[in-house]
Amino acid sequence: MDQRIIDRIEAVVGRDGYSTKTADLYTYGFDASIFHKTPDMVVLPRTTEQVSEIMKIASAEKIPVVPRGAGTGLCGSAVPIKGGIVMSMQRMNKIVKVSVGDLWVDVEAGCVYDDLNRELEKYGFFFPPSPGSAEACQIGGMVANNASGMRAVKYGATRDFVMGMTFVKADGEIVRCGTRTIKDASGYQLARLLCGSEGTLGVITEVTLKMTTKPKKSAYCLVAFNDVEDAGRCISAIIAKPLIPASCELMDSISISAVNQALGNPLPDSRAIIIVEVDGETDEVIDRDLGVVAEVAEEQGAISITPSRDKKQIALWTAARKSVMTSLSALKPGFSSVSLADDMGVPISKVPVAVKRFQDIAAKYKVTIATYGHASDGNLHTKMLLNPLDKDEWDRGVAAVNEIFDVCIELGGTVTGEHGVGISKAPNFQKERASELSSIVAIKKAMDPDNILNPGKLQEWEGSILKNLRYPCKEYM
Amino acid sequence: MDQRIIDRIEAVVGRDGYSTKTADLYTYGFDASIFHKTPDMVVLPRTTEQVSEIMKIASAEKIPVVPRGAGTGLCGSAVPIKGGIVMSMQRMNKIVKVSVGDLWVDVEAGCVYDDLNRELEKYGFFFPPSPGSAEACQIGGMVANNASGMRAVKYGATRDFVMGMTFVKADGEIVRCGTRTIKDASGYQLARLLCGSEGTLGVITEVTLKMTTKPKKSAYCLVAFNDVEDAGRCISAIIAKPLIPASCELMDSISISAVNQALGNPLPDSRAIIIVEVDGETDEVIDRDLGVVAEVAEEQGAISITPSRDKKQIALWTAARKSVMTSLSALKPGFSSVSLADDMGVPISKVPVAVKRFQDIAAKYKVTIATYGHASDGNLHTKMLLNPLDKDEWDRGVAAVNEIFDVCIELGGTVTGEHGVGISKAPNFQKERASELSSIVAIKKAMDPDNILNPGKLQEWEGSILKNLRYPCKEYM
Repeated sequence: MDQRIIDRIEAVVGRDGYSTKTADLYTYGFDASIFHKTPDMVVLPRTTEQVSEIMKIASAEKIPVVPRGAGTGLCGSAVPIKGGIVMSMQRMNKIVKVSVGDLWVDVEAGCVYDDLNRELEKYGFFFPPSPGSAEACQIGGMVANNASGMRAVKYGATRDFVMGMTFVKADGEIVRCGTRTIKDASGYQLARLLCGSEGTLGVITEVTLKMTTKPKKSAYCLVAFNDVEDAGRCISAIIAKPLIPASCELMDSISISAVNQALGNPLPDSRAIIIVEVDGETDEVIDRDLGVVAEVAEEQGAISITPSRDKKQIALWTAARKSVMTSLSALKPGFSSVSLADDMGVPISKVPVAVKRFQDIAAKYKVTIATYGHASDGNLHTKMLLNPLDKDEWDRGVAAVNEIFDVCIELGGTVTGEHGVGISKAPNFQKERASELSSIVAIKKAMDPDNILNPGKLQEWEGSILKNLRYPCKEYM
Repeated sequence: MDQRIIDRIEAVVGRDGYSTKTADLYTYGFDASIFHKTPDMVVLPRTTEQVSEIMKIASAEKIPVVPRGAGTGLCGSAVPIKGGIVMSMQRMNKIVKVSVGDLWVDVEAGCVYDDLNRELEKYGFFFPPSPGSAEACQIGGMVANNASGMRAVKYGATRDFVMGMTFVKADGEIVRCGTRTIKDASGYQLARLLCGSEGTLGVITEVTLKMTTKPKKSAYCLVAFNDVEDAGRCISAIIAKPLIPASCELMDSISISAVNQALGNPLPDSRAIIIVEVDGETDEVIDRDLGVVAEVAEEQGAISITPSRDKKQIALWTAARKSVMTSLSALKPGFSSVSLADDMGVPISKVPVAVKRFQDIAAKYKVTIATYGHASDGNLHTKMLLNPLDKDEWDRGVAAVNEIFDVCIELGGTVTGEHGVGISKAPNFQKERASELSSIVAIKKAMDPDNILNPGKLQEWEGSILKNLRYPCKEYM
């Protein structure tokens, strides 16, 4: 980075507000995806005004800027593939105001999800999306990604809670959009457009979120099956009752084996399980809903049905489910669990056929694929075990995930339910959203005419995703 | 309209698919707002493909096109102020598919809200926004407006239920955007951007909505106060408990008097009432929540607290609340209730101060203003009684509403919570959203470069709103 530009940025954020040290640049070249690319500079602003000043400099100098939350993203959205500046929001981490009687909370973009919910809990409220990275991920990143997690089927994704935000445009203009009112019919919903834009339309610096209340009671039921398709059918049948569970996690046999091996058999040895969470205001409601789950599970051929209100038991199941990703990496020596097709969404009733077809694809390409995830909203995680040093493994892996994405699109689904597009989904996102591309490209150009905000991702990605890999696979580094 | 263009349109939609008869053109020049302007042609397409063909013609000939739902809008969004074509969606009124196990329903844009909910009820689901015009209003119009109603505080507005849609761009391109999955992190949320765009970005032809379940029990509580500010404070205090009611309607003394005079005293003679609806799964939950409402109401100085589960009693209250608008028009001979500042939103806790300041403004301008509405989401309806033949009344009315809008913006609110911007809110929308305007203008230009979709409204409106009035006030017709 040109010293003249470094000096101008230092004048905005101070000496401790940026870094060009090799170690820092290396670190900020990663997120939780399979990619890595070193930026030219890391900037850590403390205010919206600083972000605005930096964007003015970047805009004048045509320097790419990649906004970054906690770096927990799995698709490469925060990897600076065109170099330039990584703009980390970690120092803007305050909860600005909780307005209890108004149902809103204002936070800075760098506020951590769990920190926010710890604060809201004091007043009896919560912000529900529950991403897997809850301990670390930041609200700004969640909004930029339209992140969600286990509870989206009942409570919605991040987009459904965004009332307004402050963001900075490519040219440095500070925009306050949306409202602090529950309702808003006042023209274009810019705040909702920014959800899922992955830093390509503006740098989100502050967010106003709607809060909601948490039911007082909840319970879980673990149901085991001889067949993963039965498990999938069970979920859609529960919803059709109708019963919308608070969450419902699916694990296939590979996920179960990996966890049982890593954690000492917390789960029943079976071909598939679902862990259904029901919540409500009274024990009577919980009992009724557990009854519905058991009735449907029986009809769908469950081999065991274990309801539980016991905190220890539930903690064990929850820990088991949370450990799938790490347990998988320990399953086969020399193999890593990689995020390639990691969170496809299909209509809920298509979960059984999707899972079956993923297994067929794994067999065809001789790769190990575990399927698990938030099945009650049709959001399936697949993790692939690869030897990350081996070019051929990567090639087969990518061929397999391309077929997986094709299946999801064919079933009326999406290539990403909650993790975002970034790099790893970009080619298949372009396929899925072919009908939208002309509008998307026009809007991006309208908002960022010089294309300096997180350039080269999503609709702009070209060619194979196998470059800039973080793994020491020579051909694809 | 040029016969050559009429012939081309007839070739697309057939002889019965359009009209240029004076009586039809006159009729389609109205919506439920204070405005009227005769279009050059009314087109009633039956398919998305027909909409696309018409847009290609309109685009080539630079003819304005105003998409129209049921015409129940109160702000002039469907009034063709630049002439051209009114595109009525009434013939595209089918419920295409209810996918029970997937939680989605596909409808054509012209599908009527109540028709949809009658169908969903068969399966135990509903689409909650509950606009006042539920019997007539169409889903496409609701989406274009981001409409809502009584239940938004608990269940959300239309925007929160839109999973995807088909829309036609100005140039005739058919776009299918969004998904039929519960989650969607696949790039820009175009479907959410179209919510609230009021026909200026595309013609919505089909919508995929998320359904949800309705609690099995509900009850109401009517609380009367000596002071409208006490009533306002009570609502925010209920929410801070926390208790999010299913709905909570406020009526001030003018609204109460008007209804009592029109309907024979269904409401207690008081300065203000709130009608709180609580819902839940069991009687125990309902009793608990009614108890919370009563406790808070007592603390906030209620003069009477009347809980009820009696269907007849509730129907009487509901009818009383629904009749406010028509009752007001009967209050003073020669005066009409007009929609000028009809649905401002403020943060919930600001309801008491907002209502008080509206009353001060009414006194200052010597106009009669009734305030009522969905107070639990801060959404206040004000209706003004005017002699619509009198220029001076209109001038004072508009001066008063401009101050009302200023108050709402000052309190952190919005000029429209659920009815949209159209014409009547346009100047104050531009004030409220000053920070967003450059982005809004850029996006509109990107999506509709020739500006043929509902031109001249929202961000494009210039000057006073007092022109094209539907009333025979010579100066402003």
